Formats: sequence, C-alpha cells, structure tokens
Amino acid sequence: MKVTVGISNRHVHVTKEHLEILFGENYELQVLRPVNQPGQFASVEKVSIETSKSKIDGVRILGPVRPYTQVEVSKTDAIKLGLNPPVRDSGDLKGSEPITIIGPCGKVKIEEGCILATRHIHMTPEERKKLGLEGVSKVNVKIEGEKGGIMKEVHIKSADASYYEMHIDTDDANAFLLTNNDQVEILIGKEYE
Amino acid sequence: MKVTVGISNRHVHVTKEHLEILFGENYELQVLRPVNQPGQFASVEKVSIETSKSKIDGVRILGPVRPYTQVEVSKTDAIKLGLNPPVRDSGDLKGSEPITIIGPCGKVKIEEGCILATRHIHMTPEERKKLGLEGVSKVNVKIEGEKGGIMKEVHIKSADASYYEMHIDTDDANAFLLTNNDQVEILIGKEYE
Repeated sequence: MKVTVGISNRHVHVTKEHLEILFGENYELQVLRPVNQPGQFASVEKVSIETSKSKIDGVRILGPVRPYTQVEVSKTDAIKLGLNPPVRDSGDLKGSEPITIIGPCGKVKIEEGCILATRHIHMTPEERKKLGLEGVSKVNVKIEGEKGGIMKEVHIKSADASYYEMHIDTDDANAFLLTNNDQVEILIGKEYE
Repeated sequence: MKVTVGISNRHVHVTKEHLEILFGENYELQVLRPVNQPGQFASVEKVSIETSKSKIDGVRILGPVRPYTQVEVSKTDAIKLGLNPPVRDSGDLKGSEPITIIGPCGKVKIEEGCILATRHIHMTPEERKKLGLEGVSKVNVKIEGEKGGIMKEVHIKSADASYYEMHIDTDDANAFLLTNNDQVEILIGKEYE
C-alpha cells in the first residue's frame, strides 16, 4: 500500500498565551498556506529557537494555536543546539528538552517541549480499517532508491479529520533522498526482524 | 554479523597540486589524528566550500593527498549549497557537482568532485571471505532503536589495508539516531524486497 511523503522542517506549535507573549496582546496567527491535515496551516509568523549553545532563526509556527507549546526539530538541529530531545508523538512532552522561543515582542522559555517527532502516518479510522491496521500501532515503510531501505517505528495516527500522508523530518528525508510527494510503501503484514 | 559505525562529517580530499594552491607552495598536511582506515588521517587544515548559493566554513581535509580532489557532503549540506550531488564511491567523480574550495592562500574551483558518499563497509579480502561476501557488492544493515530500520545499498569496500567499519554520513546517522562506535548488524544472506 503506497503513501505520500510530507516532510516536516523544524517548526513550533504555541499556546494562545505564549503567542501573545511572543507577538503581543490579542495577536492571532496569519495563514501563510494551509497544510494537508485539515484545519492546520503554516503561519506567516516565524520565531527563533535558542539554547545556551546556539540559535536557529526563521522557524515557522504551525497553526492554529494548541493547548501546549512544542518545538519539533531534527537530530541535526538538536546537535547544533546542544540538546538531546526524545522521539515523541505530538503533545507527549513530559521530560522533553527545554528551549527558549523568541518572537518580536518577547521570549518564552519552556522547561519541556522540544522533541524529535515520531515518524507517523495520518489516516482516518475508515482508512485504517481498510488497510487492515486496526489495532496496529506501528508499521514498516519501504523506500526505494540509491539510499533506500526500510523505516521502522512508523506510528499510525488515526483521527476523523485526517489527510492520508506520512510525515517524516528532514533527517529521514535527506538520509533516504526523499522529497515532498514521493510515494513510499507501507509493508502491511510484513515484520522484518 | 555486527559492524561498528563510523560517521563521516562533510570533508575534503585534495590533490597535492590543489593543496599547494589552497595552502601555499610545498605545503604538507599536518596530522591532527589518525582515522581508523590505515594510513589515513584527519588533518589540522580546514577549508571553506562555496557555491553561488551558500558557503560552509571549517570543512576538514582528510589526508594524505590523493590523485583526485573530492568534496563529500550530506544531502542536508547539499540543499544548503543548492547542489544535487550524485551518490558515489570515492574517486567516481564523472558528472558530479562543481564546487569552490577556499583555503588561506587561494581557491580552487573544481568542475566536478562534490558527491554524497555511498554507504559502505570497509573490510579486508580475508574478512570478506569469512563473512561469505565474496562476489557480493551490496548488503542490507539493520539498525535498532526508536528510529531504527534497515539501510539498503550499503557497498562492500574490500582492500588489504582496511579497518572493519561501516561508514555513513551525518544524515544517515541522525535519521537512525546512530553515534560513532554503535554496533549495527549486516543482514548476510537476507535480501529484503
């Protein structure tokens, strides 16, 4: 079964409260462009992310605002920043890395919230059922090409409002020479030891 | 069969002629530290690599001088530099990307020579025989962990003066959360489709 690849560059999710510290009172995120997951969008707004070791500018906020603030980086970014973030699903932030987010109006230091995102595939419950993946939390995905291989530990994220798509970070994309909208294959029912 | 991982950061190999343009007449590379492959070393000398789009400073030269000049980058670096280098074995530079190398005494523009290095495992012909890999040019390698999987297209490089070790670039290392001296498993006799 094929799935289309969407590559996530480093990005930030923010609470309404943190957005107002970063961009000012009653500020609202401006939509730059919708992303494939329903209701979500790349915002016009960018921030810097900083640690005692380094700083990365121009990190886009993904909207809308969320109940938690979260910074998703690649391992390459994390090494530059001197962090060792855990591999986590969105919102699972307990014990993740601290980082400072800097906007034009202020900065927010979060004590936890910087993660490496889990490789994952979005699908509706109906799609999950059709693929025979009910009760299956992780799959293996095969990538063709000169630096091909198999990605394991790809989580299934099932929700009613979903666009069927596999999300990976820039390290996975660059290691496997993948670009946006490439097709890869979910190895359903095949467990490679 | 296990093999130890060695991670190659971006680096440059130079001819004697190019070294003299970059560092001055009769210049010789200084050994910073030997690397595991016999006779090879990380040199004290660093250069910048530049394209019309971007520049990366502090790129180490690996010695000794070679019959060809070659710049090995990751795909992450290549995107920053605006290049699309092919995946190649060392010295196989026909049609690879142009790049400018800048040293303290001069610069060299090579019309080809910038590549993404093939994933590869160094071994002696005796080790190759012992592993049952005579006549086998590529293997699959299994990586454990939270971002584990299987790397395909891992080339066998067999030479008398070899240290048994798998070389990958920083993209592969960071995608699979590997660090230097990690142990991974060659899947001998197992071809995963």
